Amino acid sequence: MRGEAMTAGLRPAVLIGRKRDGGTLTEAELSAMVHGYLGGDVSEGQMAALLMAGVLRGFTDDEAVALTRILTDSGETLDLSGLSGPTVDKHSTGGVADGTTLLVAPLLAACGAQLVKLSGRGLGHTGGTLDKLEAIPGMRVDLAESELLGIAERVGCVVAAQTDRLVPADRALYALRDVTGTVASTALIASSVMSKKLAAGAETIVLDVKTGDGAFMATLPEAVDLAELCVDIGVREGRRCVALVTAMDQPLGRGVGNGLEVVEAVELLQDGPRGRLADVAMELAVEALASASDLGRDVARSRLERAWKDGEALARLQRMIEAQGGDPRVCEDPRAHLPAAPVTMPAPSPAAGTIAAIPARAVGEIAAALGAGRATKQDTVDPSVGIELAVEVGTEVERGQPLGLVHARSEADAARAAETLGEVVEVGAAPPPASTVLHRVGR
Amino acid sequence: MRGEAMTAGLRPAVLIGRKRDGGTLTEAELSAMVHGYLGGDVSEGQMAALLMAGVLRGFTDDEAVALTRILTDSGETLDLSGLSGPTVDKHSTGGVADGTTLLVAPLLAACGAQLVKLSGRGLGHTGGTLDKLEAIPGMRVDLAESELLGIAERVGCVVAAQTDRLVPADRALYALRDVTGTVASTALIASSVMSKKLAAGAETIVLDVKTGDGAFMATLPEAVDLAELCVDIGVREGRRCVALVTAMDQPLGRGVGNGLEVVEAVELLQDGPRGRLADVAMELAVEALASASDLGRDVARSRLERAWKDGEALARLQRMIEAQGGDPRVCEDPRAHLPAAPVTMPAPSPAAGTIAAIPARAVGEIAAALGAGRATKQDTVDPSVGIELAVEVGTEVERGQPLGLVHARSEADAARAAETLGEVVEVGAAPPPASTVLHRVGR
Repeated sequence: MRGEAMTAGLRPAVLIGRKRDGGTLTEAELSAMVHGYLGGDVSEGQMAALLMAGVLRGFTDDEAVALTRILTDSGETLDLSGLSGPTVDKHSTGGVADGTTLLVAPLLAACGAQLVKLSGRGLGHTGGTLDKLEAIPGMRVDLAESELLGIAERVGCVVAAQTDRLVPADRALYALRDVTGTVASTALIASSVMSKKLAAGAETIVLDVKTGDGAFMATLPEAVDLAELCVDIGVREGRRCVALVTAMDQPLGRGVGNGLEVVEAVELLQDGPRGRLADVAMELAVEALASASDLGRDVARSRLERAWKDGEALARLQRMIEAQGGDPRVCEDPRAHLPAAPVTMPAPSPAAGTIAAIPARAVGEIAAALGAGRATKQDTVDPSVGIELAVEVGTEVERGQPLGLVHARSEADAARAAETLGEVVEVGAAPPPASTVLHRVGR
Repeated sequence: MRGEAMTAGLRPAVLIGRKRDGGTLTEAELSAMVHGYLGGDVSEGQMAALLMAGVLRGFTDDEAVALTRILTDSGETLDLSGLSGPTVDKHSTGGVADGTTLLVAPLLAACGAQLVKLSGRGLGHTGGTLDKLEAIPGMRVDLAESELLGIAERVGCVVAAQTDRLVPADRALYALRDVTGTVASTALIASSVMSKKLAAGAETIVLDVKTGDGAFMATLPEAVDLAELCVDIGVREGRRCVALVTAMDQPLGRGVGNGLEVVEAVELLQDGPRGRLADVAMELAVEALASASDLGRDVARSRLERAWKDGEALARLQRMIEAQGGDPRVCEDPRAHLPAAPVTMPAPSPAAGTIAAIPARAVGEIAAALGAGRATKQDTVDPSVGIELAVEVGTEVERGQPLGLVHARSEADAARAAETLGEVVEVGAAPPPASTVLHRVGR
């Protein structure tokens, strides 16, 4: 009760109090808090209190833009101006069986753009692009800047690990948000995502904002809000920016597991586009190419379809893998050259009917439990394990017909995963409509 | 964005998330958070995030009761069961010129109750009871438990410093709340206040909840809410508990400053009750005595009035001062035996009219600036300085007539304080009605 008069003179408590009471902070004030936190003048408790006040009271779009700029400017940024082509970056907010980067990157490279993507590792039920790439024997993702730029120029696409020198303030804030229940803020998520993209330097940014059970943004309006804010930030900071809101109610692809997702991407590039994963990858690539190269979307689409069908995209993926030290034969016979799990076991459907739901989060968690995901950042992942789904929402199944094939380290693991899959997949009468791309935001 | 799935399994983030989303925590869950914080398993950021979520989402009364119990049980408690009389404790939420304890304590002692009060020091514009007592030459407030109990039994009243062994969790949480903008929660304030009172062991607790400009609870409804919750907690924990909500829009007494408040209390006990400070002290004493001794309020009041008028209350104050090492002559000629400031200077009214407002906080801040208050906990206070007001709301003044007498360390200090007082006191046409006790909550 006492003490309030004293602290009223100190900046952090005053700024926290203003946000607590629904007010707004200027860029200078947000910067003082963030840099004070990094420098030790603002305590962890003060930063967490500000974040929670912001989660519950909201941050304005101007605050989100300011915060993005503060995070971006907290470290080094990548200079892509020496590259010859239009540069593109792509980001997904994270989903299950979401191997779109493995398709979008070589497709864009095949059409003259240069995709430079700095990525992270997966946590929980969602996979990370780096984990998928590291399923490929020999593949290196820790690249020096000169090597990264060289591959981008030579091959047209490169996917590497984000270094500690980029957006250090974002990493510090994210680590705090992660343990203090303050992740769930559109403005905080948007500033975190966009700071990384702005620091990574590409002229065009294409975002895949997932919505549904397996995504962070559970509802479509939340996802649309996030997409709009991200695009707004990107455009205000001088980038071309497009976001698609896509469904993550069921796994996007059929492979759920790091190596299995590489297999699926390579097989799609070999066999041509079909299915929801290919659809989403194509739509993202169309948006990116149209925006980056000032093309109409129809023109962009026909170029991308040609690059897919004539094998140029697959060739680009192979060149990227080879340039990053990976075994290029993965692009010829992926199942032969990717690590294989010792046990495979079909997961039979416990009932007959139409597949009504394949909850993405639950399926992701089954794969994670098999060893494909991390419970903590220190865990290592097994590239060989996971699930290859044989059905999607709307598929008719007989009782006992395989829902998918489990790839596991042991019979016991496989049996447990197969049984759980049978429990989480819903077999019913009426499938929901199967649209995957739900909304577009772009300028 | 990623990481949520991981932390969903960890308790602190789950509990924070539940409060963030408007849910409630059980006593065991709150205890896990508080003790985890004390023990280092819950980080400062996590505790601060929970507190901010609670400030914005609210805590239920059950949560407030649980939190009070957790704080109370975090340290030692005082055992007053060996004392012969009914035991009473008194707490004020803090105001300006609020010397009621110096009156209530000896009044109750004179009527057969035993008041045992553990108190704190002042911060900012509000004074602390310990600071007032320490204005008395020789007065000791750091008493061993045996000495404290001995004085209570022998004299009937004792006021000492709270030891570090009582409610350590409250101190830890308060220190965090103080810097994270999370003081302003009725439940957190009530649990902090009541944990200290429960740990101090008295059977009857009388609370003076201040409201108005100079109080933490600026509005009457907020103050009533706090009073009701405090009483509810006290009663649920088996204590007799009464709260009065009293006005803190203008200074309660005329003396603002530690020694000046002792002077005023002694002079009131010498001369008999008059004015708002005496009114509030009498109402608090009536509530306390009626409750502690199972008396009707009229009987309690007549006993207290007699004790005041026949000098028994003054005698008790003198015995208490003497027992705590203070100079007992303060109760005979206070102005002669309390430290005197080197400079006194009248503060003239800049206008003629009726006193419309004497903003309590502003007047408290003037006294603090003279040296009577602390800006930080490490500051020392000067017992001699302050203001003796010559007017109250409703007084008619001529231009140049003294609003009060400034007691200062230098002519410059005095001139500055006198000028500021003239600025903050409002002289206008219509005084507001002058009720001081606004609301009673008790069972």
